[in-house]
Amino acid sequence: MSRSRNTALNYARENHARFLDELKELVRIPSVSTDPQAQEYMKAAATWVADQLHALGMSHVSIFSTPGHPVVCGEYRCPLSDAKTLLVYGHYDVQPVDPLELWQSPPFEPTVQGDYLFGRGASDMKGQLLVGLKAIESILKTDQLNVHLRFLFEGEEEMGSPNLADFITQNQDRIRSDVALNLDSGILAPDFPSITISLRGLAYFELRVYGPASDLHSGTFGGVVHNPAQVLCELIAGMHDAQGRVTLPGFYDRVRPLDRVEREELARLPLNEDYFLKVTGAPALFGEEGYLPVERIGARPTLEVNGLYSGFIGEGSKTVLPAYAMAKISCRLVPDQDPREVHQQLWDYLEAHAPRTVRWELIQHAASPAAMIEPDRVEVAALSRAMEQVWGVKPAFKREGGSIPVVAQLKSILGMPTILTGFGLPDDNLHAPNERLHLPTWQRGIETLIHFFYNLEE
Amino acid sequence: MSRSRNTALNYARENHARFLDELKELVRIPSVSTDPQAQEYMKAAATWVADQLHALGMSHVSIFSTPGHPVVCGEYRCPLSDAKTLLVYGHYDVQPVDPLELWQSPPFEPTVQGDYLFGRGASDMKGQLLVGLKAIESILKTDQLNVHLRFLFEGEEEMGSPNLADFITQNQDRIRSDVALNLDSGILAPDFPSITISLRGLAYFELRVYGPASDLHSGTFGGVVHNPAQVLCELIAGMHDAQGRVTLPGFYDRVRPLDRVEREELARLPLNEDYFLKVTGAPALFGEEGYLPVERIGARPTLEVNGLYSGFIGEGSKTVLPAYAMAKISCRLVPDQDPREVHQQLWDYLEAHAPRTVRWELIQHAASPAAMIEPDRVEVAALSRAMEQVWGVKPAFKREGGSIPVVAQLKSILGMPTILTGFGLPDDNLHAPNERLHLPTWQRGIETLIHFFYNLEE
Repeated sequence: MSRSRNTALNYARENHARFLDELKELVRIPSVSTDPQAQEYMKAAATWVADQLHALGMSHVSIFSTPGHPVVCGEYRCPLSDAKTLLVYGHYDVQPVDPLELWQSPPFEPTVQGDYLFGRGASDMKGQLLVGLKAIESILKTDQLNVHLRFLFEGEEEMGSPNLADFITQNQDRIRSDVALNLDSGILAPDFPSITISLRGLAYFELRVYGPASDLHSGTFGGVVHNPAQVLCELIAGMHDAQGRVTLPGFYDRVRPLDRVEREELARLPLNEDYFLKVTGAPALFGEEGYLPVERIGARPTLEVNGLYSGFIGEGSKTVLPAYAMAKISCRLVPDQDPREVHQQLWDYLEAHAPRTVRWELIQHAASPAAMIEPDRVEVAALSRAMEQVWGVKPAFKREGGSIPVVAQLKSILGMPTILTGFGLPDDNLHAPNERLHLPTWQRGIETLIHFFYNLEE
Repeated sequence: MSRSRNTALNYARENHARFLDELKELVRIPSVSTDPQAQEYMKAAATWVADQLHALGMSHVSIFSTPGHPVVCGEYRCPLSDAKTLLVYGHYDVQPVDPLELWQSPPFEPTVQGDYLFGRGASDMKGQLLVGLKAIESILKTDQLNVHLRFLFEGEEEMGSPNLADFITQNQDRIRSDVALNLDSGILAPDFPSITISLRGLAYFELRVYGPASDLHSGTFGGVVHNPAQVLCELIAGMHDAQGRVTLPGFYDRVRPLDRVEREELARLPLNEDYFLKVTGAPALFGEEGYLPVERIGARPTLEVNGLYSGFIGEGSKTVLPAYAMAKISCRLVPDQDPREVHQQLWDYLEAHAPRTVRWELIQHAASPAAMIEPDRVEVAALSRAMEQVWGVKPAFKREGGSIPVVAQLKSILGMPTILTGFGLPDDNLHAPNERLHLPTWQRGIETLIHFFYNLEE
């Protein structure tokens, strides 16, 4: 290991207590983005982040106002003019704290207990945000960094990043980089480092079925018209076959099959049936036949009913034959499915199966393809090696079932791939009371990123 | 026609405008029985009805409290001690008004437009309730009535009359009569009077399906648990076969078949396919194969979805995998189906078809068997002749698709038959926005009842 790398690592170890104090400062700011009362805290958190960039000697540090909460940007030009540019992404906003009474220490008074720092945002993602900044600090204070950096810190991730796509579109020259580093993910366990290589996409629909011109009395008219709630149920019931596969015509045509190597890789993850039973509380698992739970979550597409409505849903009974029934239906997509094609497939299914006793309409609310990073990219290799250097074991490559708006936005607007990592743990109580950060893993995270930057240069 | 009969008819015609004003007063009281906020209005409506009985000179007028809404009773003893006793039944409660935004005039501001009075309850059944009271008033103010009367007005009909059976059981001596006159029905068209000889019964259920312990993120967990909304849809889809028949085991075992004579009678009613298409506004009709629409409505049982709920039903999208899904499901029953058996049949169906990936529960909200009256009863003949006297044509005998719990209760508790009539029309928008009353038919209804009372004496 080179002398300079060791110097940076030593700096990170020697300054651990101060790093933690700074993290506590940031956690103390109650930057709950969905809370209309928190405007001043959002600005305070954005300013805190900008101050960090200033202290690191970054250039062009700016706080941009948006229709929502501010975006913080900054830049670092390294001495090598032909070096790669890396975009460091993070969010300074946090989830709401309710139910407050379930917290064992106040959410915005960061409290160390044993190996953990408790506090809202400690793990998601104020701690992860500092992993990036403190790794960079450790190198810049002891050596030089041979990669250009850009920074993009938003305050609306916990709201679904409603204004970020517009901001990226309007500030392309400030953001465009070779690759993004997103630290808003986690690893599988303190002794099980991992890199997320794919996220599923999303195609979200609303299906409306119309029968009679208005609600009818179910006694007076029951027996002569097709109940639109029944039709909706029949249509939805037909969208899966007995093997749990989605029946939309052509739905699997573009689905990239899992190869043997990746199936073996996924099978060794600690995400087995018992894990999902415990975490979901469902009476039994369910899904597409022939695939492991971890494969069904990450590497196979799904069709879910997100909402159902028709007729009378209050207490007791009302004998209405409804005029209308509605379902929210969404598909999670995997490479190389196209959300526009899925829209057409659902349309074709409805054309083929909706009876002429009703009218229907289909509305699309969201459409984003899956995101995948090629595992053999040089940046992935640099990160993988960094994890091995810190943990002594190779990280697992995992596929995540959700979607992260900024990853899709950077891809679609700027064509940028994202390396997705971070050092949160599955039991960090994200989005729940008593959120916590595992400090030994946090420290390993900082060291991992120091290795990562040095590995990038090699 | 006797002089006294004509005097009563003239009184009814001369007082039409005042009768209408009184009906408007009653419609203005928002007596929505299922609305917990409407307690005071329920009392106000009960008091209004009791005041009418007082004004008619009835004796023993009382407002009885029940575990739900009040019951109003009263009595009239005619000079002939051996006269028959007729129980006049009505309900002063109305259906909820939602969706409020579809009303063209406020539901509780009665509005006359052309031949119609618009307002919630105008037809069902505040208007019909006044048909009875105003026919009686017209006779008593001009002549004498030679039949004993008893009155039973409830405030829970639109909730399925949950407390009425207990009330009848505990007040048998106040209610027992030779026959009941229930005006909570209607005729086929303004020029087509009719008498209802049977009602369908009702078995109303709520089916709840539970999956994961709490709502899950549809990205993180979509693919490993069975979506309870999907399960609910599959269960509902399986409740009908391709011929539109209900698949609950044993559902048709007790259904009394239609004989040839009645099928011919029903076939001559103006309730053909075109009629139902026009009245319902449905794109096409639907129902059990092998039966005419009028047979499917009156003489065949059905299973309808009255309500559906799961997950997110607001505007836009939320990527929730719901923990819970619910359907309101009701069966209309015909002679000789037993609602308790239907409950068991639905239970058996669910036991056989619900997957072990979910838990479910079944709640029964209402249970009443079908009711039928013999068409050759003297009171039926008196009513039939009265309609002929007013309309100039013989009324049709029809089977009605709806259910009226009190008809079943009077039969089972006191052995009393019910003559079922009333002057609502199929396009009165019962239980829907823009409920209305056809005023010329309403006036004919009052005249019909005047004739009916005189015919009874002959």
